[in-house]
Amino acid sequence: MITPEEFKSAFRLHPAGVALITADPGGSPVALTASSVSAVSADPPLAMFSVSALSSSARNLRKADSVVIHLLSADNLDLALLGAASGVDRFADESRWQRLPTGEPVFEEVKTWMRADILHRVDAGGSNVFVVTIVESSVAPDAAMCEGLVYRNRTWHRIDDSTVASMPELIGASAG
Amino acid sequence: MITPEEFKSAFRLHPAGVALITADPGGSPVALTASSVSAVSADPPLAMFSVSALSSSARNLRKADSVVIHLLSADNLDLALLGAASGVDRFADESRWQRLPTGEPVFEEVKTWMRADILHRVDAGGSNVFVVTIVESSVAPDAAMCEGLVYRNRTWHRIDDSTVASMPELIGASAG
Repeated sequence: MITPEEFKSAFRLHPAGVALITADPGGSPVALTASSVSAVSADPPLAMFSVSALSSSARNLRKADSVVIHLLSADNLDLALLGAASGVDRFADESRWQRLPTGEPVFEEVKTWMRADILHRVDAGGSNVFVVTIVESSVAPDAAMCEGLVYRNRTWHRIDDSTVASMPELIGASAG
Repeated sequence: MITPEEFKSAFRLHPAGVALITADPGGSPVALTASSVSAVSADPPLAMFSVSALSSSARNLRKADSVVIHLLSADNLDLALLGAASGVDRFADESRWQRLPTGEPVFEEVKTWMRADILHRVDAGGSNVFVVTIVESSVAPDAAMCEGLVYRNRTWHRIDDSTVASMPELIGASAG
């Protein structure tokens, strides 16, 4: 096993997409920012994410049967900050969100969001890994026009056409 | 449940960091590129990733007890392509990799890699979600000098100081 400092040093530079996850596990909505959302399988439609044991939002999320996963673009950076801020009522601005017929809060300004049922909840060192089934999705027609939002080394980045990498000349070629 | 096409449409624009995962489940090394690696917990040091059921590398990876997770930077784009290519011997260039004392293949040109033991292997719609314990890490002193590598919308991106997003004026402020 490595130390927490070694662990953080290793993962700090690994880029991640950013999501806002919301739920309503019994009357009190929760929202939190997660950089761990990824697709698992398209058929059946499964995704996963993890939440730390350290926040009260995360503890409440464990009680939920369903969530809304908002995949954030660079335009949504303020929502990413909101879902990561301490001591803030993340639902204070009632003009920004509403409830789905099934009860989960949704911030409809986000171009891509999905409603999901919890399929597996794996305890992992006090944190939780969730595997979810996507039951509903909403993708705005202009979603692809937005810049991507990436978190890396405690910093937020925008990606767009100008950040596309040039391809190496030979796949699998020796560096020597 | 949504269709596979709806699922892909929703996740296509979600950015992801890129990793090369290697293992040797009994004499025949495997390597595959994964965009699903994320940290779960620093203490204990846990991470997760998923692999599709569709590739032979993924099927072999299910037999492994341990893996090496290489977190790729933009300089490693050719390794990302190598681990995603079909019908290629990913270990053909023997000058690029060696075995750890514990047997797993490692591409030491990658600035950050970690050896990990499989803690949980969750079956999820034919795919597998792995939760792993990091037992060893290697971070090169100049790792932070490298550009980040991001996959989004079937395209590879580089991120660096020039892609840092400017911060919104008010956290949680209304858009209206």
